[in-house]
This record gives sequence, structure tokens and C-alpha cells, in this order.
Amino acid sequence: MTLEKALVVGTGLIGTSVALALRAKGVAVYLSDIDAHAARLARELGAGHEWAGEDVDLALIAVPPPVVAERLAELQKRETAPAYTDVASVKADPIAAAERLGCDLTSYVPGHPLAGRERSGPAAARADLFSGRAWALCPRPETDAHALRRVRELVSMCGADAVTVDPGEHDSAVALVSHAPHVVASAVAASLAGGDDVALGLAGRGLRDVTRIAAGDPLLWRAILAGNTQPVAGVLERIAADLAEAASALRSGDLDGVTDLLRRGVAGHARIPGERGGPVRENAAVQVAPGDGRH
Amino acid sequence: MTLEKALVVGTGLIGTSVALALRAKGVAVYLSDIDAHAARLARELGAGHEWAGEDVDLALIAVPPPVVAERLAELQKRETAPAYTDVASVKADPIAAAERLGCDLTSYVPGHPLAGRERSGPAAARADLFSGRAWALCPRPETDAHALRRVRELVSMCGADAVTVDPGEHDSAVALVSHAPHVVASAVAASLAGGDDVALGLAGRGLRDVTRIAAGDPLLWRAILAGNTQPVAGVLERIAADLAEAASALRSGDLDGVTDLLRRGVAGHARIPGERGGPVRENAAVQVAPGDGRH
Repeated sequence: MTLEKALVVGTGLIGTSVALALRAKGVAVYLSDIDAHAARLARELGAGHEWAGEDVDLALIAVPPPVVAERLAELQKRETAPAYTDVASVKADPIAAAERLGCDLTSYVPGHPLAGRERSGPAAARADLFSGRAWALCPRPETDAHALRRVRELVSMCGADAVTVDPGEHDSAVALVSHAPHVVASAVAASLAGGDDVALGLAGRGLRDVTRIAAGDPLLWRAILAGNTQPVAGVLERIAADLAEAASALRSGDLDGVTDLLRRGVAGHARIPGERGGPVRENAAVQVAPGDGRH
Repeated sequence: MTLEKALVVGTGLIGTSVALALRAKGVAVYLSDIDAHAARLARELGAGHEWAGEDVDLALIAVPPPVVAERLAELQKRETAPAYTDVASVKADPIAAAERLGCDLTSYVPGHPLAGRERSGPAAARADLFSGRAWALCPRPETDAHALRRVRELVSMCGADAVTVDPGEHDSAVALVSHAPHVVASAVAASLAGGDDVALGLAGRGLRDVTRIAAGDPLLWRAILAGNTQPVAGVLERIAADLAEAASALRSGDLDGVTDLLRRGVAGHARIPGERGGPVRENAAVQVAPGDGRH
């Protein structure tokens, strides 16, 4: 029972990339998007065919977090597939919304591929976007084993590594490793707005790297943060306190306090899988850029 | 009058990289370092010959900021060269120290190449480290025109672009585009120290980029920050305030406040030369990595 027919609802960057990956494995892919332009572009890119209500083996819901549950309810109502998953970067909220809407939670396997780009939309899609990346899955005790197998098959076809995790644990984790860092990158980038051209002319690769993700779409990120407010706030509070303390130490010439933060930074950085000193995640094609920061 | 003989005092990453660049242009390079092991390694890498007190056309002082003025005074006392420069990443402090030590400020052209790597020491040196990068020079009204020409020649031989800037303006600029972002990267990395392995396993390239420079040597960075405490503190205070406000907005569910920060981040990021929407610095071989951040 290989995955033969899939439906991708939402042909943005992630949905179209999944569709392209599945097409490359010979899966028949149907596409649907409320934005007719995005759906047509995805079809023209070879991601699949227009969906006219066909039944499929698996439906992937690749829409913004706040509307995942709504789409799931619609699809389940028409009995589109025996298995459903989503790609929202928060998990507790969509699951709670699905419960509220009376969705069948046995056929729904909440998911989150840990991959993306600053650019959005189907034109930015790549079949290998998920290659070697982690893909979080949050099955529940009542999850149907067949549905879970189907979704794992999809993850595998995308070249990603499935990581099973509790929804709340997932949201705390991405607050720490993704959502809060994004807000911090935005704050560093925002601090540049008032800099003069001479200052910006001295910018190096270090600054480019620190601020790169700050170029992401503010409205997409607003939706992501809206679904994970308290965990992200907790991480930001700790970072803000560390920075305020570092500023205060610098003001008073207490370099020891700042050096301690720098040391903790080295230790924390080493915990990232694949970084110097950190564990390497199995099967992960982690690319470590050659170091080259200005100071 | 081409640069024929140069002395590099301090054979760490920067000094050895300059030496390699000069050697590639046929300059006779002498090397000196209080660390005999570093000096020997630099010589073995082909960066130049051991210095036995020979006179040279130009002496480059590539030692930590707090000891630049001391080395300058020593070299000037033995009349080593008609022109001197340094590479310290802060400029006001070394100049003030040189004045205090009674150095000849007409032959000293304070400098700072905006390039580096996380790795330090001569083994990490590369002849092309400065290619296409900015190299700040802080000549003063009394600076000798010949000395300035010599230093500009060195910058040109390294493939870098000389940017003339006032020392105070330089220090404020690097606080904004380099020193404060480094501390922020350290704070983000430090926040990971308490994360569990599952969380770290979900880390993506976005986090790697934001924290990459946090791997830098804490003692080197302590010395850099010690020479630029007030400007760095000012930038950190603004960033800490933005993050505390974002956390507070998230706690209360006010997504507008956070979205405003995200928008300011997009605008600030676009001001970085070579980034999307930003001006491109002439002659700069700016490499923009393909975007690919997780969320």
C-alpha cells in the first residue's frame, strides 16, 4: 500500500514543495488553493493537477495555522482521505481548534516540517526543501496506525526525518529554536533602521547572518507567533534580561559579567546538532557554512 | 615607490592573513609574535620570515586592542618604518593610548579591516580574507600623506576597499553592525543551554545563522567590547527594550506591537548593503546566501 494519490491544500512555499517532492516519487498530486493565481502557478511548475473533489490516500493541509482546523473539518466532511496532516509551525492551537470543530482526530496526524525560506509562494518551492531536515509529528493516543503510517510515508518521500514529539513540547521547542530567534533577529535588524550609511557600509557577513531571517514576511510570522505567544514570550524575556544585564555591565565597565554571557553563548551554540562540539543528527545533511564573521 | 618590505607584528588570524596577501603580491614580509609557536606556524604557512629588527616600509600591528599603542611606541622608538597601522576593531581607545604614550601620530594611520572568522590563530588565515571587504581607516589632520598612501597601498594589495571614517564614528558604527549583534547572538545561543535534546533536534539553518558568530573566542570579544563599552551598551539597551516590549505584547495577546517590530526588522534588514532592497557597495564581492530559514 504505497501512497498513490495525495491532495495538497494550500500551494504556498511548503505545500508546493511537498507536491513537487511527491511528484518526483511518482505520486499523483491534486492541488487546491483559494488563491487561483497561486494554484495555477503551482500547476505550471509541475506540482500536480487541479483538484475536482477526487478521493485521495492522504491530504496535506498547508495553510496558515489559524485556518488549519477549518480546512480539516471541510475535508473530513466530504471524506476526502483516510489520513490527514498539516504543516503548521505551531501544534497545540490547531489541535485544540480541530477538537472544538468536532474533527475526527484519529485520522489527523499533526505535523511540522522544519524547513523554509525567506521567500514565500509557489515560485520559491523546491522538491528538495525537506531533504535531511527534521519533520515533527504529533500523533495522539487515539491516532489511527494506518493514518500515521501514511504520513510517515509522506515524510520519507520528502527525504525528511520524522521526529515524534508531544504538541506542547513541540511548541516550546520551536519557541526556543525558531520563533524567539526570529523576533530577536528582527530586533537587531530594526536597530539598523536609525544607522547612517557609513555605519551600514561597515556591515559584514556576521550581521548578514544574524539578521537574515528578519527578512521573512511579517504577516506570516504574526500568524505563527499568534499561535505560540506564551512560550515565545518566555524565551524573549530571558534573552531581553540577559541583554539588559550585559548593557548595564558594559556601562559600569564590569567586563566579567559580559564575558560570562559570551561563554554561555559558546556553550549553547555547541548544543546545536552539527555545530562544533554538538551532536550530529543521524541522516541529516547538515551544511555548516565556513565561519567568517566580522568584528 | 611600491611597498617592498613590510613587518607584521602579531601573527594571529588577521596578521597572518595580511602577510599572506602581501606575500602573494611579492612583498617581503617579516613576522613577529610574542607567541613563538604562532610565529613559527605563520612562517611555515609561507607568510614571511622571522623579523630580526630589519627596517621596513610599513609596519602592521595586529595585536589585541589594549596593547596596540604599546607595540606602536616600541616600533617607533627603534624607527622601524615611516608608516604604521593597526587592525584593532575599536579605534578611539588605541589612538588615545598612543597619545598618552607620546607616540608620533603623524606616521600612524589607525585601521580596521572588517573581516574575520570564528576560528582564530595563524592556521585559520587566508590570503583572500579581505577580498571585497571594507577596511576602515581613521587618518587625523596631522597624518603624514606618505604614511596614508602606504597604508592605502596595503589595503589595496589585500583586495579590500578603504573607507575613511572618524574614530568615534567608527566605534559607534561597529557597535551597531558588529559588536552589539555579537552579544545578541551570544544571548540567543545562551538561551539554548537549558533546552532539551528534542528541542535542539528541531534546530534549523535559521538558528544556526543567528548564533554562528556566538562561537567566537570569549576572551577576544571581551577585549573588543572593553574598548567600546558605551556605544555597545546603547545599542543593546534599545534591542533589550524592543524584546521586552515584544514579550509583554505577546503575553497580553497584542500581536500588532510584535508585527510592528517585525516590519521594522524587514526595513532595517533592507538597509544592509547587498541585501534585498539595500544598496550594493561598489567593488564589494558580497555573497548573499540563498534564503532558507525554518519556522
